[in-house]
Parts: sequence; structure tokens; C-alpha cells
Amino acid sequence: MITVHSIPGSPYGRAVLATCIEKAAPYRLQPVTPGAHRQPAYMALHPFSKIPAIEDGDFKLYETQAIMRYVDAAYGAPRALTPRDPKSEARMNQVMGVIDCYFFAPNSAMTLGFNRVVAPKLGFPVDEEAATASIPRTRHCIEVLSGFLEQGPFMAGDAFSLADILAGSHLELLSAAPEAKEMMQGPVQGWLDRLAARPSFAATTWEQVAAMAA
Amino acid sequence: MITVHSIPGSPYGRAVLATCIEKAAPYRLQPVTPGAHRQPAYMALHPFSKIPAIEDGDFKLYETQAIMRYVDAAYGAPRALTPRDPKSEARMNQVMGVIDCYFFAPNSAMTLGFNRVVAPKLGFPVDEEAATASIPRTRHCIEVLSGFLEQGPFMAGDAFSLADILAGSHLELLSAAPEAKEMMQGPVQGWLDRLAARPSFAATTWEQVAAMAA
Repeated sequence: MITVHSIPGSPYGRAVLATCIEKAAPYRLQPVTPGAHRQPAYMALHPFSKIPAIEDGDFKLYETQAIMRYVDAAYGAPRALTPRDPKSEARMNQVMGVIDCYFFAPNSAMTLGFNRVVAPKLGFPVDEEAATASIPRTRHCIEVLSGFLEQGPFMAGDAFSLADILAGSHLELLSAAPEAKEMMQGPVQGWLDRLAARPSFAATTWEQVAAMAA
Repeated sequence: MITVHSIPGSPYGRAVLATCIEKAAPYRLQPVTPGAHRQPAYMALHPFSKIPAIEDGDFKLYETQAIMRYVDAAYGAPRALTPRDPKSEARMNQVMGVIDCYFFAPNSAMTLGFNRVVAPKLGFPVDEEAATASIPRTRHCIEVLSGFLEQGPFMAGDAFSLADILAGSHLELLSAAPEAKEMMQGPVQGWLDRLAARPSFAATTWEQVAAMAA
């Protein structure tokens, strides 16, 4: 049984939960209450205070990519969510890097998503200037991600992979931002629709994870 | 033949070159001249203008982790630099995430390394205030990385892996910063000494890569 320490609305938390569902790995959500991620109990799981972290028996792990790869290796058919062909696997890894390094970054989609989706939902103040300034980098990231979909229906080509789970968790959240809607026309919207139809995504929307946490 | 587009002194470029050497993958360095990484020719290889990028025949790839994993999968004994045990592989992936997300980040070791090592070497202005402010986060990262070495001689445990190559490339550069020396006493210094003895590290020092580029 994997204990997933996360917060409803966290795209990284969603990526881990959806990976567990895709691999039929038994899991339970342990909600992290706001602020608790900076307290010693959580920092024993994640010394950098980010969301999520997991425990699998006495094995503790943080960093979303590492968790996703671990669940893919240790549960169900080993590496079923990782393409076997080295070039397709490289595309998967590249997309995961693009999400972590350029998309979910300050003055990019992290800033736009926070100010247009997360802050209004949770009643936090909105920084209009920061939101507007983050549009060009966000658009560039989405153009690059859209380019990967020219090779096939999924980010790494023909097969659904960890890259779709990670990128899909982030882009689905951002798609609630009015400025993001037109950036996602075409291949990205079609891909998001394919993901939304999967049980792993249907069971891990913000609302579903909030219900799990209740 | 893998063409590695990089710049002498880039720790990410070094990590890719050292991976090629460890896997006995044929490679050549294509030096990127300063400023060229923001020009269209290089941006066709890397739309986010970071260093390095590779070409392997007509296959183009950027993002250092993706490149390292690709070389490990496609050359030599497949995945020889990736532990087979899922928990050890998870440690490798976790350490690579720590380097990319927390160590090589603003106000952390990226800032300290730039101001104490890169800027003096290249004659760029030094931001003393930024260097000083980056010390606590850098120290925290090194403490966390040192913790991984309690499990064995290498970052993922008993076996040398991609995590050692990526973390070693970054920490070796930082070790030239006076403030970093005392942070690296103990297990980290012993580990750096073990890495320095490997042909892949000896052949990819700043000076060696500069000689390759000349």
C-alpha cells in the first residue's frame, strides 16, 4: 500500500495518483494540510517541502518523476508506462523535463496557473501583472509540447506513457485559465480529451481528490 | 556518432560527455560559441536555449536527463548506468531531481557557482550579495546529497549510476568555491575523489573540454 502525501489541486500529486491507478498499485491519499508541508513531520518525508511525497512500507521517496518511475517499475507490468524503444523513451523523458524545467517555472505556466486557476479557487490574491507577464513563456511551452503530438496521439508517439500523465496533469489544470484556452486549440485539446476519458484522469480531478481527502 | 553541442564549463554538458565516455558511445564535441545558444540555428536544436543538445544521426534531443538516459539505453550494455532494483533506481532518479530542482536553482548552488567559479573565470561581474544569500540553500542541498551517501559509496547505493555523473559534474564545479569546500567535507569529498579517478571525469574537466573545443 502506497501512502501518497498530497494536496487536492496539486498537479504533481495528481500525476502520482494517476500513475498508481494506471499501474493498479494500491494507494491511499494522506492529505497534507496547508502549512504542514513546512513542518518537521512532513519535512522528514520531503526536505525541500514540496508536494507530493510517498511511503511504500518503510521506503520513503520524494520528487514526482522519481515516484512515477518507481511505481512504473515496481507495480503491475514492469515499465508498462515507459516506451521500450530508446528514442521513444527519450521523447518521454524530454517532455517530462520540459514540464519540470520550463512549463512549471516562474514567469511561465506555474505563474499563469497560480493566478488564473489556483488563487481564484482558494481565495488568494491575484497578481494581474505577473499573470500577464507569464503569457509569452507559457505560449512557447505549449507550442513546443504541441509539436511532440505531431508524431502520434501521445507525447512519446503511439503509446501512452508517464509523459502524458505528468504533462496532462499540468495542462488540464492550466486549461481552466481563459488565456490558456486558445493556446490549447488543435492537437493539445484533442490529447487532453483523450486523457480525460481515462479512468486514471477521471478519478483524479481536483474535485475527486478533494473528495478523497475529505 | 553523437554530436554534443556544448560549452566548456557547463556541468550539464560535462554530464552528457561523461555519460558518452562511460558507455563507450562515439561522440564529438561541437562547441557552442557564446551567444549562439540564442540564435535560430541552435534554437532549432533546443527551443529553450539551454546547454547541451545532441544529434545522433537525424535524431535530435535536448534536456540533459533525457540525453543521459538515452545514451545509457541506446549504447553499450543497455542501462548499465541505471540500477536494476526499483528502489535503487528510485534513489538515482531522486538525486537527479534534487540536482535539477533545488541544487541548480536561483538563490542556491547555481547562483553560488556562477558568482564564485564561473564569473571570476570568465571575467564577468560578481554579485557578492547574491553569492552570500545563496549559501543557506546550497548548504541544505549538500547536506541532503550527503545523506544519500550514507547508504553506500555512490548516490544510488553500491553501484555507480547516472546520478553520480549528473551530481558529480555539478558538485565538482561548485567545489572550486571557497564557501563550498567546508560544506563538502566528509562523505561528499570522498565521493568526489572516487569520481575524479574515473576516466570519464578526468577527460571532461573544464580544461579538457576547453582543449576539445579549441
